[in-house]
Amino acid sequence: MTQSVYLDYAASTPLCSEAKTVLLQTMDCFANPSSSHRFGQRSRVLIEDSRQEIAEIMAIQPKNLLFTSGATESINLGIANICCTFRPRTMITSNLEHAALLGICEQMQLINNIPLLKVNHDAFGNIDLGHLDTLLAKNPQSLVCLMHANNEIGNLLPMKEVGKICKRHQSLFFCDMVQTIGKYTINLSELPVDFAVGSAHKFYGPKGVGLFFFKQPLSPFFWGGSQERNRRAGTENLQGIAAATAALKSLHLNIDANKQQVKCMKEYCVQKLQDTFHNIVFVGNCQFDGLYNLINFYFPDFDTDTIFMRLDMSGIAISSGSACSSGSNKKSHVLDALNCPQKSMRVTFGLPTTKEDIDFFINNLSAIINQVGKA
Amino acid sequence: MTQSVYLDYAASTPLCSEAKTVLLQTMDCFANPSSSHRFGQRSRVLIEDSRQEIAEIMAIQPKNLLFTSGATESINLGIANICCTFRPRTMITSNLEHAALLGICEQMQLINNIPLLKVNHDAFGNIDLGHLDTLLAKNPQSLVCLMHANNEIGNLLPMKEVGKICKRHQSLFFCDMVQTIGKYTINLSELPVDFAVGSAHKFYGPKGVGLFFFKQPLSPFFWGGSQERNRRAGTENLQGIAAATAALKSLHLNIDANKQQVKCMKEYCVQKLQDTFHNIVFVGNCQFDGLYNLINFYFPDFDTDTIFMRLDMSGIAISSGSACSSGSNKKSHVLDALNCPQKSMRVTFGLPTTKEDIDFFINNLSAIINQVGKA
Repeated sequence: MTQSVYLDYAASTPLCSEAKTVLLQTMDCFANPSSSHRFGQRSRVLIEDSRQEIAEIMAIQPKNLLFTSGATESINLGIANICCTFRPRTMITSNLEHAALLGICEQMQLINNIPLLKVNHDAFGNIDLGHLDTLLAKNPQSLVCLMHANNEIGNLLPMKEVGKICKRHQSLFFCDMVQTIGKYTINLSELPVDFAVGSAHKFYGPKGVGLFFFKQPLSPFFWGGSQERNRRAGTENLQGIAAATAALKSLHLNIDANKQQVKCMKEYCVQKLQDTFHNIVFVGNCQFDGLYNLINFYFPDFDTDTIFMRLDMSGIAISSGSACSSGSNKKSHVLDALNCPQKSMRVTFGLPTTKEDIDFFINNLSAIINQVGKA
Repeated sequence: MTQSVYLDYAASTPLCSEAKTVLLQTMDCFANPSSSHRFGQRSRVLIEDSRQEIAEIMAIQPKNLLFTSGATESINLGIANICCTFRPRTMITSNLEHAALLGICEQMQLINNIPLLKVNHDAFGNIDLGHLDTLLAKNPQSLVCLMHANNEIGNLLPMKEVGKICKRHQSLFFCDMVQTIGKYTINLSELPVDFAVGSAHKFYGPKGVGLFFFKQPLSPFFWGGSQERNRRAGTENLQGIAAATAALKSLHLNIDANKQQVKCMKEYCVQKLQDTFHNIVFVGNCQFDGLYNLINFYFPDFDTDTIFMRLDMSGIAISSGSACSSGSNKKSHVLDALNCPQKSMRVTFGLPTTKEDIDFFINNLSAIINQVGKA
């Protein structure tokens, strides 16, 4: 049995023990939450308790949280919904956003004729707030769609500032929080964010559960039954919702300690990488800033795919690009937007990550670089 | 501890042991199926094996099966997709369909100006095929949306005949098979059906997993990652998909025996109801025909909600209307369409149902009817 090390927590996280426990406990809680008999009402209580708990953690009213099937649904149906309900003058996003967001925004431009504008960013991937202000001054009553933390390079958005600029220009702010929910304390009642999106399998919950927070009126995502106060018909994934809630709750019990622990792993890894490889180039400013569990780098003149493949053969899982676009040989649109000359490696740490994992990773990476360099 | 009897299998089914086992076995199979490292590829294999198995059971190519978050998503995004891709001249459905189907068809009429026509049905809920033929003769190149088995009254649609009529008039046939997948052998390669929909939690699988079968080109349900051959972006609910597959597979190993067993329960219950209550009225022709696990009836001059509530207090779960509309005091649109004078009770049987369950149900029902009658 060879050792294996998983360093791709931004792509997906393992289920935490609390989520597993709830999955086991709810195996027999099967009745339809819309059934009015007692079996059904037990299911209903499970969902509404979950909604209450997540809403409390995020400081929002339970009625402003919709459970969906994942972040991609939340982003696609959320943005389509907002475009139809509010008819924003323009949509403003950046070239650094997730493919789901860019994809639905392009569709809205195509189908609903809502112009899609891109806000500038600097070479490190930081959004140009001055440019955002200029764009919105020319196009008030727009929809601004930006992510809290970039899933490839880890840059953090100054949400308060962005929200203030949006309010100043009577515009809505839609924020993809997939990479930050469960990692940071997010107070939606204080933040000037109108819509926010999360995904359970990024915070040690199950796949198939998404979150959609909204402070503005919504039309239904799906038509049919009266689930989710008529906003999303369809029998709720109650086992998944309950397990997702347990995961988020357990993270928030120790949110500062978790942050400290994972941040240490990142710092340890950055230090060792810098000590070991003089030719390493970090993308953006991830080595000293941004998401505390993410680094992104490459070695000039070394083929990233080759390194990735050899790491994989050594039992080490990292990412070359975001999971959604990995497998394709193309450089990601984010790296393109940053004029990054080649594909890079994204290494992301999680609560189970140890220094031994990082040592194992760096030792193998070092051996591979030596081998590939000699080839 | 009082006895409790669940007779609401059309609303939702418990997880079968095979599905539970797979949920347990896949607890640690967490990597993103879109990640190209070995962790991710193990997840990918799990999904593609599941797709292969379900496709085999349904006699369709794996590439023509899309995994969704449930039947409501399959119906909503499926019909919206078909309307945008094919621009059918009209949509033809019936007043007996599920609220999800009626809801999205009404939206398509509103948004896309595609006229929505209703095919006639008789007093028993049988679709008038002659009328369908007439409608399609006047409106070729339409989209016909009808369910295989009605979820409230159990009527079965002659799918072959409907499909033939559709083909004759160059029309597409979309079939909601939520209540029949896992109960009947369905050969999609032989059936003249263009699109079909299923839901795992109706066949002893988990909630949050839907099936969408298609024989015609599709546009993406969601934009983003390249999952599901670019047809539905978003990280797949792999644990759910694997468990759903195990459930369907196990049902199909004994499909005839299962049918015989559950049919016996229905026949036993119908007989006992007829022997016990002279004033019982069955809705449609469910007492001798239709879905082999469903009956629907009422007692004239007895308030169904009162009976339902008292049954619930006795630990017996049946349905007054479909789960999606239960809880509301309104008579369902299906009963309205059948000119049923009052709310009725839907009793649905499953593999765990025993004669003792039915005896317990009838004894309690009898006591309630006596009580309520005297009141």
